[in-house]
Amino acid sequence: MPGTYHSEGIPENITRFLNISPTEPSSDSSKELYPLMANPVKKTMVEDNKCHGVTRSETFHRIKAKVFTGVSYFSGDMRVFGEWMKDQFILFQILDWVLRGAAQVMFVNNPISGLIIFGGLTLQNRWWALNGFVGTLAATVSALILRQNRGAIAAGLYGYNGILVGLLMAVFSDAGDWYWWLLLPNTFMSMTCPIVSSALGSINSRWDLPVFTLPFNILVCLHMVATGHYNNYFPQVLIQPTSSVPNITWSELDVAKLFRSIPVGIGQVYGCDNPWTGGIFIIALFISSPITCIHATIGSAVGMVSGLALAAPFDKIYFGLWGYNCVLACIAIGGMFYALTWQVHLLAIACAFFCAYLGSAIGNIMSTFGLPACTWPFCLSALTFLLITSETDTIYKLPLAKVTYPEKNLWYFWEMKKAERAEKLKKDQEERLAAEEKEKSLQKRQEAGVPGEKELGPPDTCSVTVEAVEDTQQDASEMEGGDEDVTQHCSTEM
Amino acid sequence: MPGTYHSEGIPENITRFLNISPTEPSSDSSKELYPLMANPVKKTMVEDNKCHGVTRSETFHRIKAKVFTGVSYFSGDMRVFGEWMKDQFILFQILDWVLRGAAQVMFVNNPISGLIIFGGLTLQNRWWALNGFVGTLAATVSALILRQNRGAIAAGLYGYNGILVGLLMAVFSDAGDWYWWLLLPNTFMSMTCPIVSSALGSINSRWDLPVFTLPFNILVCLHMVATGHYNNYFPQVLIQPTSSVPNITWSELDVAKLFRSIPVGIGQVYGCDNPWTGGIFIIALFISSPITCIHATIGSAVGMVSGLALAAPFDKIYFGLWGYNCVLACIAIGGMFYALTWQVHLLAIACAFFCAYLGSAIGNIMSTFGLPACTWPFCLSALTFLLITSETDTIYKLPLAKVTYPEKNLWYFWEMKKAERAEKLKKDQEERLAAEEKEKSLQKRQEAGVPGEKELGPPDTCSVTVEAVEDTQQDASEMEGGDEDVTQHCSTEM
Amino acid sequence: MPGTYHSEGIPENITRFLNISPTEPSSDSSKELYPLMANPVKKTMVEDNKCHGVTRSETFHRIKAKVFTGVSYFSGDMRVFGEWMKDQFILFQILDWVLRGAAQVMFVNNPISGLIIFGGLTLQNRWWALNGFVGTLAATVSALILRQNRGAIAAGLYGYNGILVGLLMAVFSDAGDWYWWLLLPNTFMSMTCPIVSSALGSINSRWDLPVFTLPFNILVCLHMVATGHYNNYFPQVLIQPTSSVPNITWSELDVAKLFRSIPVGIGQVYGCDNPWTGGIFIIALFISSPITCIHATIGSAVGMVSGLALAAPFDKIYFGLWGYNCVLACIAIGGMFYALTWQVHLLAIACAFFCAYLGSAIGNIMSTFGLPACTWPFCLSALTFLLITSETDTIYKLPLAKVTYPEKNLWYFWEMKKAERAEKLKKDQEERLAAEEKEKSLQKRQEAGVPGEKELGPPDTCSVTVEAVEDTQQDASEMEGGDEDVTQHCSTEM
Repeated sequence: MPGTYHSEGIPENITRFLNISPTEPSSDSSKELYPLMANPVKKTMVEDNKCHGVTRSETFHRIKAKVFTGVSYFSGDMRVFGEWMKDQFILFQILDWVLRGAAQVMFVNNPISGLIIFGGLTLQNRWWALNGFVGTLAATVSALILRQNRGAIAAGLYGYNGILVGLLMAVFSDAGDWYWWLLLPNTFMSMTCPIVSSALGSINSRWDLPVFTLPFNILVCLHMVATGHYNNYFPQVLIQPTSSVPNITWSELDVAKLFRSIPVGIGQVYGCDNPWTGGIFIIALFISSPITCIHATIGSAVGMVSGLALAAPFDKIYFGLWGYNCVLACIAIGGMFYALTWQVHLLAIACAFFCAYLGSAIGNIMSTFGLPACTWPFCLSALTFLLITSETDTIYKLPLAKVTYPEKNLWYFWEMKKAERAEKLKKDQEERLAAEEKEKSLQKRQEAGVPGEKELGPPDTCSVTVEAVEDTQQDASEMEGGDEDVTQHCSTEM
Repeated sequence: MPGTYHSEGIPENITRFLNISPTEPSSDSSKELYPLMANPVKKTMVEDNKCHGVTRSETFHRIKAKVFTGVSYFSGDMRVFGEWMKDQFILFQILDWVLRGAAQVMFVNNPISGLIIFGGLTLQNRWWALNGFVGTLAATVSALILRQNRGAIAAGLYGYNGILVGLLMAVFSDAGDWYWWLLLPNTFMSMTCPIVSSALGSINSRWDLPVFTLPFNILVCLHMVATGHYNNYFPQVLIQPTSSVPNITWSELDVAKLFRSIPVGIGQVYGCDNPWTGGIFIIALFISSPITCIHATIGSAVGMVSGLALAAPFDKIYFGLWGYNCVLACIAIGGMFYALTWQVHLLAIACAFFCAYLGSAIGNIMSTFGLPACTWPFCLSALTFLLITSETDTIYKLPLAKVTYPEKNLWYFWEMKKAERAEKLKKDQEERLAAEEKEKSLQKRQEAGVPGEKELGPPDTCSVTVEAVEDTQQDASEMEGGDEDVTQHCSTEM
Repeated sequence: MPGTYHSEGIPENITRFLNISPTEPSSDSSKELYPLMANPVKKTMVEDNKCHGVTRSETFHRIKAKVFTGVSYFSGDMRVFGEWMKDQFILFQILDWVLRGAAQVMFVNNPISGLIIFGGLTLQNRWWALNGFVGTLAATVSALILRQNRGAIAAGLYGYNGILVGLLMAVFSDAGDWYWWLLLPNTFMSMTCPIVSSALGSINSRWDLPVFTLPFNILVCLHMVATGHYNNYFPQVLIQPTSSVPNITWSELDVAKLFRSIPVGIGQVYGCDNPWTGGIFIIALFISSPITCIHATIGSAVGMVSGLALAAPFDKIYFGLWGYNCVLACIAIGGMFYALTWQVHLLAIACAFFCAYLGSAIGNIMSTFGLPACTWPFCLSALTFLLITSETDTIYKLPLAKVTYPEKNLWYFWEMKKAERAEKLKKDQEERLAAEEKEKSLQKRQEAGVPGEKELGPPDTCSVTVEAVEDTQQDASEMEGGDEDVTQHCSTEM
């Protein structure tokens, strides 16, 4: 079969925000999050075991459950909506995928967030928004042509690189807005996204790592450096390395602008410098996952602080250039790919600081080639922090196939812990029982007068055979005399 | 044992153009390609099965077969000649390996093609040809000293990086022709080729990927940047980044030169700008494999078109600098490492376009360091396209150990498909038979009055034992009474 | 469980200088090196087998043994001291780990060497020494916080990147000595070391490769390029690419300085240009492992010669900049990660030459970004040479978990060879015995008149069952008649 090996790794890789595991019986995320309230059948089962005092606050719980169920229809990854979409007209489906793709840049698998994000982009610049839409569409269609995993496409995992490629190619183009020719390389590059995604996925899946925005970074840098500033058709913005000490006077620091740089930093993930656009993005994040939203804000703040600490020009900090990588890195580590514990929370902040440092470094290196830093710093720092191994079990990296969104990841982690504890308990119990059983049977045997047989060790195939044969031998040998050859055969094989 | 793990992966890697699989009974490639005509024994066997109408055009087929057998002696990978060579004097063998190495740059494992290519090189520049020869020889001898896989050496897989290192070090040297000191670093770098090849092979074999010309790229760049333009002993040609908009006037386009850029592009794989040399190379390719030849031409044309589309200076396009990477990428994807279907053909063209884009990008980046693009664009684009995973089975990546040349790869793919279909058919039949058998035996048993025994599930070792013992028990128990303990033991183990 | 997969690879990676294998019974390295003298119990056992003539020179051997035992207390990896340290106060332990970390830069796991090295650093520059100490301490403490493998921390494997980060950040700082603010980024970067080490370890462990000084390279380059020469707080030394032909007059060559460049090259591993410091480092190496010391000297000499051959400015050669990478590469290949044979010795010299070439290349590339070459050339060349696979067994790469120091590695290699030979001998003997046994039993059987049974093939589970049952059948069938069904069941399963 063609590429069986890779195809094993890839499905895991591309279904990171999906939950298609056959072992989880309930298909509604709300049910999974609140099994007690939303699923009466389960409830009774669980009640029998441990919840005898539920009746007291049952009414309150029921209301809470209804609210949660309602919220779950448009928050999280909107699984119910996604399931329902599967039976709709293909164009509607593609629209859903495109919207999810737009939101997946921030690790959010939610079409409403995607819609809000497109709104924010339109507020910023309509030409950019158009390019972003074309990019997402081209990438999604290309993934369909290349027969990539349908679940991953539906989760927008092939679209998010497309929207970034489309947007940033428009942002960094020096030909001005509404230069329609740009749609040509835009479409070509966006359609190449799934190819690069798939290839990188084959590599990263060996370490169970996502590809992040690496395809976007590679392709936008490729386009920008292939054409460059001095190109007749597709000129790029001129970016040059620093060659003099910047003038930094602390008295000139504008605190209002500094605080505004936090939403601007979140907006810069999509290349937008409008603080309102950034604010809209924050809302889009909050709808799907509050944890993501908080870490995005923390990340942006950490980036700002790092910029001040490393003597960056104030303009760059105000412009959000120190924030956007930290935003993404902080989201990725803080609850998305690790289960959120307070150690992981600290790790996420450490990663944001590291990412800011790296951002400055990569920005300086890339400027030598006339390139922006893109989201290379985020990708490299997040991959580094995801590759850490430690002997503590408070830092738990989720298997890529189980990653959905921070809240659900956390729930998965807790369930796993619970299951582990239960299994351990069960095992202990079983062992105790087995020991008792053994003792009893030994006693019985000894009473029946068949000693020495228990020394045969664990009952593997061979010993079974031996025992079986011996038993038969006991039957037969009484008439004929045992054949010792059999036992020897077995012992040499063991 | 030393390095057992790696040595498992490597043989597969280095025998990519060899066919040393023990499962293929015929050693003559012509026989494998045309089993019906060249092998009378096989013919009768096949005839019995399906070819009852062969007699009609048998004479025609026989002539055709003779022609094919004749062609097969000097086309393809010349296996017969290679086998015969194994018993010759070592110096003749090394010459064979060097010639194959020269052709392997274009994925051709054929000493005649190699000879023609050396002819083309001599036509271009005798000093370059000499350096290329020295490089191939040094790399091959070094591989022998390092005790690399003999089959891979014999296929020229350690020579092709050597010839490129030798050639391109001469091409980019600023010391002029016949600067004999150059042979010193030339030999050193060529002898390092097998080391870098082996090391990269250890990494790439994890993804079943070839090393392509990566060792050449690494080593030539290493030499050029280690010495640089401002070196007393080994100065390099001065390469500088673009710093102004090139003047592109479409009216000045010379169509004749544009078409001539296609063979020139093929010649530039070896660093040659002479269109005649390029033409000779096309002949060398055609002798071994027409599919390779066609894809080389397509690749060069795609490169030219891309150059025009990305506003490249016409001189560079005429000079074939936009073509050579696309040539190699198009050959590699179009039938060499993928089995050639029309989807793969389209993929090869897409890869050539991507490669041209990448070529421009890498060229601009490398020029910052005073380096040429070498064949980095080809390597990176081909590796990316070989890492793609897809759910379609029309894009089939051959296992590296099975790669020979496009025609034979295609035959392998077809045979595999056929075998798969046959196996499926056989399986279906077997399943049907087994079902019938089961039914029958069940009936028989039921007639004999032994029900309940069939519930034991699949006949694994344990159940066999149980049944066997039970059977014996049936015999014995009639005298003594069965021991039920045996069956329990088994059921706990199952 | 969290990250089980990675945690499998990492312990091996991080325990490269430890010997925590449970299979080696003696915990004293001296005992392992000289099992005959130092361990009387073993001695008698061995004596019984082969050492009948030992008594003659026993007194001499006993004295030698005592000397060796004494030497072993402060040479090699000082296992005894390390074991003893485990029960001491944690601050003393950390001091031990810091000292070992300082020496681990040169692959030496020895606190006395570390102390001497700190002495050398103090001789060179007290501010640098302080920064180095802070870096080692921060890295070690950070590794403890991150719950890395305790054995690896104790071996100094998390400290050596820290000392280099601390030292080199001070060396390349343009703010002058005693600029106390530097300790802030110094501590931050040093504390990031274990994170980067762990991440790189996860990748490299797939090929059973160490991380070398890659974390240091990454982090120092990151800091330097993130701040750059034009920074208000942390300015870096200005490094610029060559832009003119250097003036090389061979008559001006100073032979005394040239020879002095050998210890200076060793000192430059720690960024020190004082030849006395280099000399002190040589002593530190010699104490722990003479083989390491010799290869360090050879490496430095090879670097110097390469510099002359590639037309490097004499000043750079005198300054040891051509030596330090070759020193490390030559140590790593020559006996540290490969078992030292004369082929490996040649390979180490080849690696040193390759490393010098690479050093020049990387130096030129990095200067474009205002960066020094750091030890990238060493890392890349050593990793390349460790990835080589060959069909010869004279180049044996030790499993990472077994690497200690050259002398002990060699002993391990010899023991392994001996064990292999012994096993082979035993196997041959066993086979001969088995053949004899078989023949005998066949004769017996034939005498008893039970032919045809031996054709059943290798005695796997099934055949055993069959035979066993048949045997019983023989017993039983004489009364009832055999059940042929049993044999059929088995044959279908086989």
